[in-house]
Amino acid sequence: MASDNAVDALIKQLARLPGLGPRSSRRIVLHLVKRRQQQLDPLVAVLTEFQETVVSCKECGNVAIGDLCPICTSEERVANVICIVESVADLWALERSRMYKGLYHVLGGVLSAATGVGPEELGIPRLIERVQELQATEVILGLGATVEGQATAHYIAEQIQHCNATVTSLGRGIPMGGELDYLDSGTIAASLIGRRELT
Amino acid sequence: MASDNAVDALIKQLARLPGLGPRSSRRIVLHLVKRRQQQLDPLVAVLTEFQETVVSCKECGNVAIGDLCPICTSEERVANVICIVESVADLWALERSRMYKGLYHVLGGVLSAATGVGPEELGIPRLIERVQELQATEVILGLGATVEGQATAHYIAEQIQHCNATVTSLGRGIPMGGELDYLDSGTIAASLIGRRELT
Repeated sequence: MASDNAVDALIKQLARLPGLGPRSSRRIVLHLVKRRQQQLDPLVAVLTEFQETVVSCKECGNVAIGDLCPICTSEERVANVICIVESVADLWALERSRMYKGLYHVLGGVLSAATGVGPEELGIPRLIERVQELQATEVILGLGATVEGQATAHYIAEQIQHCNATVTSLGRGIPMGGELDYLDSGTIAASLIGRRELT
Repeated sequence: MASDNAVDALIKQLARLPGLGPRSSRRIVLHLVKRRQQQLDPLVAVLTEFQETVVSCKECGNVAIGDLCPICTSEERVANVICIVESVADLWALERSRMYKGLYHVLGGVLSAATGVGPEELGIPRLIERVQELQATEVILGLGATVEGQATAHYIAEQIQHCNATVTSLGRGIPMGGELDYLDSGTIAASLIGRRELT
């Protein structure tokens, strides 16, 4: 490489980001060299502000500026419905649907005997406290349809039993645009179980 | 989006980089939130250093720290051979081959009547001065095998005629791993013209 330390260091650091490798990092670095005012300067400014201000919401685990995230502080959200998700990415995915108006609780993972992630690591005791504090009427288990996601959902459902909240799970079935021919039998079976009468 | 300004601003800024879009930017931002010490802090540090120190080499146009790049200041490079390339990316590609020991000259583009890029914009007068100053014995035209790349190569060859330097062009032919069946006739023709006796 015909380059200096700051260049190599940036290429290496970028290559560690998800979806980027050495080749795409080199391309980005060359792009930034050529577009100093339009791209490099704003990127440094925005990234520094992000580094200095963005933290995890103390209530729900979403990204936040200050102690609480905009969802937890919003007065327009339904405060007695909580949706439990694995990650902030999942929270954002649900927000993009614009269908959900309640609060969230980000676990930051799923229970896993293999990697030693237990209820304490996921903060499930704190979650149960929160369900009680909010006097939640509904807890939606927004966890993935994976073995570990479902095991985590079952564990949480058991722990919440005594809280007087209805526990629900996201619907399962055929995704939008999905063709039956290309879907696995598990999804087809779930879609039959979850069938609804047309109104 | 359930997020704040600094988060959205970073997603938008990252999405403007080559190879990234809104989806991959979101993924990177979530990755950075979770790995503050391991990834976010070093990235900000390295990017800031890059912003503050990296410039274009005053001699050849490569990326540099200080006035001159490591190739121009190296005593191990052959100083009377110059390879003319379109971009820093091309310079890096040649360096990766570890076959070339001379100097470079980065044009920053190719001649193009359509976009109004003429010899002045590419700094060709300065290039000719440099060929004379270095008393170059060989000038390698390392430009792409495109119509505009070749037009630029021809123009430069004409301008250099009086400089007493041999003007060469990169070899054309079958790329490593290339199968004849899948190559275009232009490449096959070039490989025939450039055929060499086995030694």
